[in-house]
Amino acid sequence: MKIVIVGLGVIGGSYAMALKNAGYEEVYGIDTNIETLKKAKEIGIIKEGYVEGKEVIKEADIIILGIYPNLIKRFIEDNKHNFKDGAIINDVTGIKELFIDEVLSILPENIDFVFGHPMAGREKKGIEYASDEVFKGANYLITITEKNKESNIEIIEKIVYDLGFSHIKVITPKYHDEMIGFTSQLPHALAVALINSDEEGRDTGSFIGDSYRDLTRIANINEGLWSQLFLGNKNNLLKSMKAFEVEFNKILKCIEDEDKEALEKLFIKSSKRREKL
Amino acid sequence: MKIVIVGLGVIGGSYAMALKNAGYEEVYGIDTNIETLKKAKEIGIIKEGYVEGKEVIKEADIIILGIYPNLIKRFIEDNKHNFKDGAIINDVTGIKELFIDEVLSILPENIDFVFGHPMAGREKKGIEYASDEVFKGANYLITITEKNKESNIEIIEKIVYDLGFSHIKVITPKYHDEMIGFTSQLPHALAVALINSDEEGRDTGSFIGDSYRDLTRIANINEGLWSQLFLGNKNNLLKSMKAFEVEFNKILKCIEDEDKEALEKLFIKSSKRREKL
Repeated sequence: MKIVIVGLGVIGGSYAMALKNAGYEEVYGIDTNIETLKKAKEIGIIKEGYVEGKEVIKEADIIILGIYPNLIKRFIEDNKHNFKDGAIINDVTGIKELFIDEVLSILPENIDFVFGHPMAGREKKGIEYASDEVFKGANYLITITEKNKESNIEIIEKIVYDLGFSHIKVITPKYHDEMIGFTSQLPHALAVALINSDEEGRDTGSFIGDSYRDLTRIANINEGLWSQLFLGNKNNLLKSMKAFEVEFNKILKCIEDEDKEALEKLFIKSSKRREKL
Repeated sequence: MKIVIVGLGVIGGSYAMALKNAGYEEVYGIDTNIETLKKAKEIGIIKEGYVEGKEVIKEADIIILGIYPNLIKRFIEDNKHNFKDGAIINDVTGIKELFIDEVLSILPENIDFVFGHPMAGREKKGIEYASDEVFKGANYLITITEKNKESNIEIIEKIVYDLGFSHIKVITPKYHDEMIGFTSQLPHALAVALINSDEEGRDTGSFIGDSYRDLTRIANINEGLWSQLFLGNKNNLLKSMKAFEVEFNKILKCIEDEDKEALEKLFIKSSKRREKL
C-alpha cells in the first residue's frame, strides 16, 4: 500500500513519523519546500520526496492531505486526472462543511475522499516540530459523506489507530463543525483574548502559575491557518462565543452582587462537568 | 528551627512533603482532621500532628498557615497569646489586600507576618493529593508590609527556594491583588464559563483535543475557596473580566465582519505575547 502525504508540515510530518514507527514502509512526501523534503528523507520518515509529485500521485493508494483548508479544492482540481483508480484521499482539516460539497462536486467518481480530523496538534509549524507522540491516545473524527465506501472508511480507521489515536467518532460534517466551533475554536478565541487583554509593560511572567500558562499556550497561534478556520466556521463559532458570554456574564453578575451561593453553584456545575470529561 | 504547618490539605501537605525532602526535620502539623494527621505522620512528612496544637505553637519559630483566607484572622486572634517571641508567620493565601490590614491590626508587636503566595497548586483538595513536584520551578510572591523585618523575609525566601520554587517576586499587597485578578482568577472564570457553556447531553468528550482539556482543567474548582478568592478580590477581578471582554469582542467583530486581516493581527499579537512569556 503506497501512501503519499501532501504537505510535510508539523501535522503531515508527524503523520509520516507515526506511520514509519507503525511499520508502514511505502510512505512518500510532497512539499513545496525542498529543505523539508530533505529533512524528511534524512530522518527516514519518507522513502522519497517530491516538489511536484504528479508521478507518485499516479501510484498512490492513499493520499493524505496535510495542507491548509483553502488549498484542498485546488489540489483535487490540479490532480483529478492523476489519481489512481480506486484511490482514497484523506485530509486533516479542522473545518468540514464549507469545502466538502465543493470538493465532492469536482471529485472523480472512482476516487473516495474520507474526510478526517485528527484532534491533536501543536502550536508550532514546520517539520522540525513533527512528533508522533501527539497522536497517542487522542481523538479522531471522520466526517462521513454519502459517497464514502464502508471498506474505505475501515482502511482509514486502521491507519488512524496505527498512528496512535485511541478513539474514532464518525459524524456528519454539519455536526463536526458545530462541535469543533465549541471544543477547538472557542478555546483558541479565549486564549487569544486572555493574553491580549493584559496591560502592556507589566512583568506578568512573575505572577503566573500553571493556570495562566495552560490557558494561553494556544494563544501562540498560526494566524494564516486559524483565520481560515475561524472564518470558515463563522456561524458555529459565533454561536459558541455568544453562549460562552452568557455563562461568563453569570459569573460577572455573581461577583457584582457578591452572591457567594450562586457563584458556588456555578463552580459546582463546572467541577461536575470537568470530572465527567 | 521548628516549623508548624497549620492545615495539612493539598497545599499544606505539599509544603510538609517538600520540607521533608529538603532536609527539614522539625516539621509539625495541625489539622482538624485526625485522619489527615495520621496519614501525614505515617508517610513521615511531619514529626507529630495535633488537632489543637496550642503547645506546639508556643515553641514554633515559623508557622505556615495552609488554611482558607477567612480563617487567617481567627487563627491570629485565637493564638495571639501563644506565639513564641520573634516567631514568623507565613501564609499561602491567593488574595492579600482584604485581610492584611485586619491581621496586622491584631498581630502582637513581637510577631512578624511575612505574607506569601505560592503560584502552584492542584485542582484537588486533601492531603492525598499533596505533592512536592508542583513547586518545582514555580513562581512565589511575597507581599511586603511596613512591619516586615528584612532578616525575616530572607528566612522565608530561603525556605521558599528549598521548597523548590525558582522565582520570588516581592510586591505590595495592592499590586499583588491586581495582577492575580488577571493571571489567576480570570483564567478560572474563563474555564468555568467555557465548560458551563456546553450544551447539555452532547458527547463532548469525543470532540476534544489538548486545547479544550487544558483550558478546562481548572474548571474543576474548590467552590468554597474560590468563591472567597473571587469575592475577596472583587474590583480587580471585575476590571480584568471587563478588559477580557473588550478583547473577546474584538475577535467576535472580526468574525462577524469576516475581516481576515484584522483577525490575523490579533493572532500575531497574542503569539508574540505568548512567546515572550
